[in-house]
Amino acid sequence: MAEADVAVVVGVGPGLGAALVRRFSKAGMKVAAAARRRERLASLAEETGGRAYGCDATSEGEVERLFAAVKAELGTPELVVYNASAFVRKSILETSTEEFERCWRVACLGGFLVGRAAARLMLAEAAAHGTILFTGATASLRGGALFHNLAVGKFGLRALAQSMARELQAKGIHVAHAVIDGQIAGERPGYRREERGQDAVLEPDAIAEAYYQLHRQPRSAWTLELDLRPWVEKF
Amino acid sequence: MAEADVAVVVGVGPGLGAALVRRFSKAGMKVAAAARRRERLASLAEETGGRAYGCDATSEGEVERLFAAVKAELGTPELVVYNASAFVRKSILETSTEEFERCWRVACLGGFLVGRAAARLMLAEAAAHGTILFTGATASLRGGALFHNLAVGKFGLRALAQSMARELQAKGIHVAHAVIDGQIAGERPGYRREERGQDAVLEPDAIAEAYYQLHRQPRSAWTLELDLRPWVEKF
Amino acid sequence: MAEADVAVVVGVGPGLGAALVRRFSKAGMKVAAAARRRERLASLAEETGGRAYGCDATSEGEVERLFAAVKAELGTPELVVYNASAFVRKSILETSTEEFERCWRVACLGGFLVGRAAARLMLAEAAAHGTILFTGATASLRGGALFHNLAVGKFGLRALAQSMARELQAKGIHVAHAVIDGQIAGERPGYRREERGQDAVLEPDAIAEAYYQLHRQPRSAWTLELDLRPWVEKF
Amino acid sequence: MAEADVAVVVGVGPGLGAALVRRFSKAGMKVAAAARRRERLASLAEETGGRAYGCDATSEGEVERLFAAVKAELGTPELVVYNASAFVRKSILETSTEEFERCWRVACLGGFLVGRAAARLMLAEAAAHGTILFTGATASLRGGALFHNLAVGKFGLRALAQSMARELQAKGIHVAHAVIDGQIAGERPGYRREERGQDAVLEPDAIAEAYYQLHRQPRSAWTLELDLRPWVEKF
Repeated sequence: MAEADVAVVVGVGPGLGAALVRRFSKAGMKVAAAARRRERLASLAEETGGRAYGCDATSEGEVERLFAAVKAELGTPELVVYNASAFVRKSILETSTEEFERCWRVACLGGFLVGRAAARLMLAEAAAHGTILFTGATASLRGGALFHNLAVGKFGLRALAQSMARELQAKGIHVAHAVIDGQIAGERPGYRREERGQDAVLEPDAIAEAYYQLHRQPRSAWTLELDLRPWVEKF
Repeated sequence: MAEADVAVVVGVGPGLGAALVRRFSKAGMKVAAAARRRERLASLAEETGGRAYGCDATSEGEVERLFAAVKAELGTPELVVYNASAFVRKSILETSTEEFERCWRVACLGGFLVGRAAARLMLAEAAAHGTILFTGATASLRGGALFHNLAVGKFGLRALAQSMARELQAKGIHVAHAVIDGQIAGERPGYRREERGQDAVLEPDAIAEAYYQLHRQPRSAWTLELDLRPWVEKF
Repeated sequence: MAEADVAVVVGVGPGLGAALVRRFSKAGMKVAAAARRRERLASLAEETGGRAYGCDATSEGEVERLFAAVKAELGTPELVVYNASAFVRKSILETSTEEFERCWRVACLGGFLVGRAAARLMLAEAAAHGTILFTGATASLRGGALFHNLAVGKFGLRALAQSMARELQAKGIHVAHAVIDGQIAGERPGYRREERGQDAVLEPDAIAEAYYQLHRQPRSAWTLELDLRPWVEKF
Repeated sequence: MAEADVAVVVGVGPGLGAALVRRFSKAGMKVAAAARRRERLASLAEETGGRAYGCDATSEGEVERLFAAVKAELGTPELVVYNASAFVRKSILETSTEEFERCWRVACLGGFLVGRAAARLMLAEAAAHGTILFTGATASLRGGALFHNLAVGKFGLRALAQSMARELQAKGIHVAHAVIDGQIAGERPGYRREERGQDAVLEPDAIAEAYYQLHRQPRSAWTLELDLRPWVEKF
């Protein structure tokens, strides 16, 4: 019997992360879901028949252990998504050095640690292949007032995706970056869909479908970047 | 019995245009294929069960007649693709005014005429919806030396796509622009795949699949722009 | 006695165009000012000791005649600015083909005709040199809703500037493009400065100074693009 | 007697940094030059009549002390430039976490620390004004293969400049970012100008002039970004 392909999603919360785990699982993949607090992933792992891992993505040691465990327990991943982010909205005058650094570490350093670990595993295979996806934001393309804590990390993550794509694509690894331009349903606790009208925010399942289609692209026509926004979003 | 959805592809040659017609047809759509010389589309129309139309996309009258005929014979289109282009590689010093204008008319004016006609039909329906796609190129983002005849039109087409998206998306019309960054297999007569290695150029079927996935996106997560290139392409 | 350098400004109205003529004249250049209606330039030419020319920049014949006259009467230009534009704000559904084409012809085709004529004269000299500047706008970078008539031409003009720079810079011709991101004082008749606060719109003299500094750049550090906006402008 | 304006340049090596110090000094400013090793700045400070400061720009404490000393000894700065950078060219597979972090800290975190300190001093004055400039690179706009260590920091610095501009410009502080697209003469020890032809690399004095012109812009027409490259550079 053929082994199922393995996917890893790092940064799994109640919105997009969970939707990615479900979409990849529905496609028949064995899915490793990782978040800082493993206990929050228990029911999702059970629901999808996958595995939950605790991992602080800003820690080199924890990321290395995550990928070693995934390889040992599930196999070499075909598809890895980096989906973590952090943000404190503040004036530049009031931003502490710790906040500035921490937001960058979650948005960008974690992407480097996860991307590097994924690429090392994928390239160790005889016929190297696989997909590495990064979640961007409006702030990946525009540094807005009071948004430096998000934009610095997201610009950096986009730079990382470009550099990795240019280095790794000819070796068989597809690297892509999705600019999520709007609010994702379910990612803010107090948010209620009905207040803004039908489909007025990004549905996690719709984004997850786009990510899965990126993974399915044949290597003769790979996308490095696409944007996704709701039909009613101003941009 | 439910009516099949209608697609229109303007600018159908042996490469991407034909692949789009086949992909949409395979999805069960009735496909109108349009090109300057209708007789070249006969076998494709027969193969796909669609219709062939002769149309000079740079002529307002011919574009208006095309969409009137499509509406009368097939119905209001759900999906319209503008895929025509023209290019003369030359020094700015040697480019004639006629060449400069003609390339723009094919790459950009035709996109306006087709996009406007498509939008008018789609918005005339009770619950307006539909997808309008434009084919871009490397030259949509970068004006290279000796490439002004292509870049001026392709930059303009991208501007048109952005303006149309910002005007029409909240009315239910999805507008998107695909940056095709590389050579498409079959679009240059003398080209042979084997000379450059496997999948070293863009396969039309792979691009067509990406266009079809754009059409399938739910309105909560629409893409305005994506790029597509072969895995071995330098960029 | 050394001959004065020659500058040509095409598209001279009461705002930026006139300020450019004055700034270049103040620097000791002989300045040719061109606009559709030559009679409107009479007092400016007298004030600056330059010459006024009537020229429809969208007409190949008129642009050729303009540059032939400038060469014969003043000499080969060192500095040429293309500053014309046209715009009709409209829905895509209501834009006529004539409006769409006309706006492009003023914003972009005229830039090609002027840029080509300038480059031909400059490159005919023994030690080729000179500066060609294009006036862009917010719409050079973003196609807004109802702004396709401006954005299509301005995107195209930016493509032209990039292609010309990449072809001509190594031959000694400096090509640059300025993105004017905001309203220019004096370019709308009814506008009054005091209503928006001090320096709240772009002062033509300040833009003209930036253009002149571009012309003064030594070839070891040439700018292709810069943006200019008032301090209080949202962007 | 009127006090001279104060400028601060952080990241002063033998190339651009020294040229900035000389240009601002020539304009009559009192210039504080800062680098990790103060002793290397002694002759430059003596030549220009300015002051030399030792400062590790990645250390919050050292940056705070630098600006406190500048304010006490010279006065509140009018013009502050962040010019430091670090880079290790490597495969993503071989990049250590320490290298990745260190390059970001020099290119981007230092820019935050310096920009924040500069903005705080400038905004503490009664009529706030001043200019803050950041030195970008080709890698500010493009993440090339093996260039992630540079691009992640430089993309981040550009995001920072945009966010700061959007927050601070309406308060009277001009923020700008210069994309230096090419090699700067004198910044690599073994480089000899004559090998590449006249003016084939960026002359530091030419870049410094462009920075000074940015500082001189009146607030009715401020530039956020410009690029600078030698005439013969491919781009």
